[in-house]
Amino acid sequence: MEVGFLGLGIMGKAMATNLLRHGFKVTVWNRTLSKCEELVQYGASVGETPATVVKKCKYTIAMLSDPSAALSVVFDKDGVLDHINGKGYIDMSTVDADTSSKISEAIKEKGGYFLEAPVSGSKKPAEDGQLVILAAGDKALYDEALPAFDILGKKSFFLGDVGNGAKMKLVVNMIMGSVMNAFSEGLTLAERSGLSPATLLDVLDLGAISNGMFKLKGPTMLQNSYSPAFPLKHQQKDMRLALALGDENAVSMPIAAAANEAFKKARSMGLGDHDFSAVHETYKAPHHSS
Amino acid sequence: MEVGFLGLGIMGKAMATNLLRHGFKVTVWNRTLSKCEELVQYGASVGETPATVVKKCKYTIAMLSDPSAALSVVFDKDGVLDHINGKGYIDMSTVDADTSSKISEAIKEKGGYFLEAPVSGSKKPAEDGQLVILAAGDKALYDEALPAFDILGKKSFFLGDVGNGAKMKLVVNMIMGSVMNAFSEGLTLAERSGLSPATLLDVLDLGAISNGMFKLKGPTMLQNSYSPAFPLKHQQKDMRLALALGDENAVSMPIAAAANEAFKKARSMGLGDHDFSAVHETYKAPHHSS
Amino acid sequence: MEVGFLGLGIMGKAMATNLLRHGFKVTVWNRTLSKCEELVQYGASVGETPATVVKKCKYTIAMLSDPSAALSVVFDKDGVLDHINGKGYIDMSTVDADTSSKISEAIKEKGGYFLEAPVSGSKKPAEDGQLVILAAGDKALYDEALPAFDILGKKSFFLGDVGNGAKMKLVVNMIMGSVMNAFSEGLTLAERSGLSPATLLDVLDLGAISNGMFKLKGPTMLQNSYSPAFPLKHQQKDMRLALALGDENAVSMPIAAAANEAFKKARSMGLGDHDFSAVHETYKAPHHSS
Amino acid sequence: MEVGFLGLGIMGKAMATNLLRHGFKVTVWNRTLSKCEELVQYGASVGETPATVVKKCKYTIAMLSDPSAALSVVFDKDGVLDHINGKGYIDMSTVDADTSSKISEAIKEKGGYFLEAPVSGSKKPAEDGQLVILAAGDKALYDEALPAFDILGKKSFFLGDVGNGAKMKLVVNMIMGSVMNAFSEGLTLAERSGLSPATLLDVLDLGAISNGMFKLKGPTMLQNSYSPAFPLKHQQKDMRLALALGDENAVSMPIAAAANEAFKKARSMGLGDHDFSAVHETYKAPHHSS
Repeated sequence: MEVGFLGLGIMGKAMATNLLRHGFKVTVWNRTLSKCEELVQYGASVGETPATVVKKCKYTIAMLSDPSAALSVVFDKDGVLDHINGKGYIDMSTVDADTSSKISEAIKEKGGYFLEAPVSGSKKPAEDGQLVILAAGDKALYDEALPAFDILGKKSFFLGDVGNGAKMKLVVNMIMGSVMNAFSEGLTLAERSGLSPATLLDVLDLGAISNGMFKLKGPTMLQNSYSPAFPLKHQQKDMRLALALGDENAVSMPIAAAANEAFKKARSMGLGDHDFSAVHETYKAPHHSS
Repeated sequence: MEVGFLGLGIMGKAMATNLLRHGFKVTVWNRTLSKCEELVQYGASVGETPATVVKKCKYTIAMLSDPSAALSVVFDKDGVLDHINGKGYIDMSTVDADTSSKISEAIKEKGGYFLEAPVSGSKKPAEDGQLVILAAGDKALYDEALPAFDILGKKSFFLGDVGNGAKMKLVVNMIMGSVMNAFSEGLTLAERSGLSPATLLDVLDLGAISNGMFKLKGPTMLQNSYSPAFPLKHQQKDMRLALALGDENAVSMPIAAAANEAFKKARSMGLGDHDFSAVHETYKAPHHSS
Repeated sequence: MEVGFLGLGIMGKAMATNLLRHGFKVTVWNRTLSKCEELVQYGASVGETPATVVKKCKYTIAMLSDPSAALSVVFDKDGVLDHINGKGYIDMSTVDADTSSKISEAIKEKGGYFLEAPVSGSKKPAEDGQLVILAAGDKALYDEALPAFDILGKKSFFLGDVGNGAKMKLVVNMIMGSVMNAFSEGLTLAERSGLSPATLLDVLDLGAISNGMFKLKGPTMLQNSYSPAFPLKHQQKDMRLALALGDENAVSMPIAAAANEAFKKARSMGLGDHDFSAVHETYKAPHHSS
Repeated sequence: MEVGFLGLGIMGKAMATNLLRHGFKVTVWNRTLSKCEELVQYGASVGETPATVVKKCKYTIAMLSDPSAALSVVFDKDGVLDHINGKGYIDMSTVDADTSSKISEAIKEKGGYFLEAPVSGSKKPAEDGQLVILAAGDKALYDEALPAFDILGKKSFFLGDVGNGAKMKLVVNMIMGSVMNAFSEGLTLAERSGLSPATLLDVLDLGAISNGMFKLKGPTMLQNSYSPAFPLKHQQKDMRLALALGDENAVSMPIAAAANEAFKKARSMGLGDHDFSAVHETYKAPHHSS
């Protein structure tokens, strides 16, 4: 099976490598072409432009760093649109709904097929083929890409119309952001009530809401260590977008709204570039300065 | 090892049975004495009053239904206080801090040793010896009781002064109540945004905050089925008490406060006796009646 | 008309003086008897004990500093209860519902008549006879006391059963506490958005929600000046009690709950003894210290 | 003084009439030209297009119904831009910041001067010359227009850069929306605690936070009557925009966030077109339907 792959950053490189290892023929492209060399060792071909890659392959996967890169690869000279007629294009980058639908419409107008497929999971799951894939758009293209998705992820979902992949990610991240705040409140209450927060972590870990995030973040939060796995400003942006989605659909969400205000407070404290668990700092007693 | 056991309700019977099965000599008492018979089959002796049991054993465990039963067993005629001098008393009932410290003081004044040891876990974990035990009070008594705790629970904690067991339970339940609300908001947002809430459950289950409560309650919540494992009015009472604990210690907890208001809303909708997951109903769109 | 008056603090002295000036015969008592002298100049008689005063007058008004003083005057030796049979007792002190009903029951048991009548307004309105009187309890006693209330206040209300006076005060103070938070948020948002908060005060003052509190507190809040007219810790206590009243009646109040958490945050910043407008400090950007 | 006036709806007609009555020479234009006739009786001239009006007058005031009308009058054929070079343009319509800055930039590029000047107040204040004018943009134009503003309003403010007029309105409306929610909670708590909400209105009216909105809306809210003076969906939009302004500036506003969720809940109950005081309905106990 010949597939194209655009974008060889941390995520893209791991994903393309997995495809090669499992017997896919892959033609890769990257803005900095030298990054393609390592993959050539594993048997990849190199395309000189996105257009070349798309022309050669039945469908092409993209994994780009941000919306502007995602747009540029499609709309710029020698971009995806040039040869998309009759071909499939699967954008696995994390982009907003507007970007996604702009790309979707342009591709469909040119006679191509489009699937958005943002993933949940970062470097390690990408390397281990353990991503969760939230796909939406062209169902036939989804079915065609399933063998690749089965290599890249532990599970993939087809969610219907373009936009639903992004929405599902927002809902999940909104719940996660609220849970992080509930957790921070509990740690703070324990400490201020004379209980050991470390023991609270042990007790939580034995109970009904034991989960990976408490296990991973709890110990570092107790050390006031917030090295950014998921930056707080991005978590707050997702809360804001989820609340906006609720606004469109008249869903009242007081917990998420309160959590969002706590993340904003954290931003005002200069914690936007720290890990989202740094919202913990907002619950501690500040000192009155005046 | 000879231990006493007061209270053979659902929990107490399972716990006393486990002790007998693991070679403990147990003298039991129950207000309705006929309930003792089944345990006699397993080798238990029967005491006619709490006082008799306490007199005979080095330490006595109690597992009673509520604060008034817990107080009555200690303070009534032929109660625990009669022979407590030099003996240990371990109250594993779930009671409020006031009840616990009233019992603690009376026992210490009479020359006895006291440990509060509320548990996390209900019937099934009690039968399987998989409770989590949150003990606080006399450390030497805790050490002495550890062999029994190792049979009754998968893990026991010694948390310091009397009162800390109850406080730890409140903190855990507060986090759980907030998480339940965050979960309900997410399910509602998914549904109203055109996503499948059932798929959301699958996606959550593959992510960082996957936990037993989502797995257990999610499917029933989607069927509007709230058969009470933990009644909503008790969850709301725990939220209220946790917020009061925060008030004492000047801890600001906006998420828990918002969650508490949602549970109150649910009570006002007549859902107090349903499972606490029925707070989900408050997030759905009500119909304007006037 | 002969009336008794117990308690000549700042409020009580002003109130008793007003009664004397308007032709009432008043017999006064104060724990420190020397405080009675000034009133003797205006024509007051002095009673040596609360019992003496009650015996001499048809009804007796009390204006005491706190619940313990209010209880002591009634229940101590030579207290109100000694001669209350057939007499009226009107407690205008600000006390909690429990204190009020304890006094009410004792007086009724002894054959007396009771009215709770907390006031809204402090020193200046007391001097000017401009208090607002929130009375509840014995309706006939209320009617009898109306001529006195007309001198002490600009308006008096009869609210039904004992306890309703205190409840009405809580509801009013709860709304006031929430409004103060809304106001603080607006001032902060204006400042951080590049608008002049002083101009915001001017604009508010011309609009539909212009009110005395904005006019009085706004300018001092902009100077970070919070000299205590109504201490923040008392405002927070009233929010807590109002929320507890809501809890009893299953009323969900998310705004008051969020405002209460802000007042708690302020307490954690050491602002409990400042004016309640110091909650404004919680909305400013704190600096991250670690 | 010769001024132009575009837009003769309810507000515009009242405003232009006031200018004429106070001796201004006014040239008016309206999309439906017949509406100009009444003003001709008072001495107005009529311009056939916005361009004609602008050409003739030193500055032109616009009072249009919504952003699309505001844009159309400026950018369409025979619009304001045609002859704006060296002239002033004052848009008193209520439009969003984007619309306002789009108009501002186009006018400045053509050599014109721009002032945004949204007003607070509706029909009655417009007729009585009692509007509050929130102007921002060109200071010299503001000074030139002051004689007109003095006729149209009781007070006008110059707030600096274009955008600040709209922002000030948002801040004021945000506070108002939160206050309305605090008020609704208080009314509900009173009722459910056995107090008379009507008496609460009387008590509030005698206290520190007595204000026009409580006086105007309270009695109708108690009758569940919400005939729309300011539609709830517009109030909720303003809350959302104010929260977005807070988001830009990292201002945490938990009260406004909670109030916004209540307005969203009201929208989900089908109350969007009722008066914003209908948020009161969200605080009442809903009935559980399942």
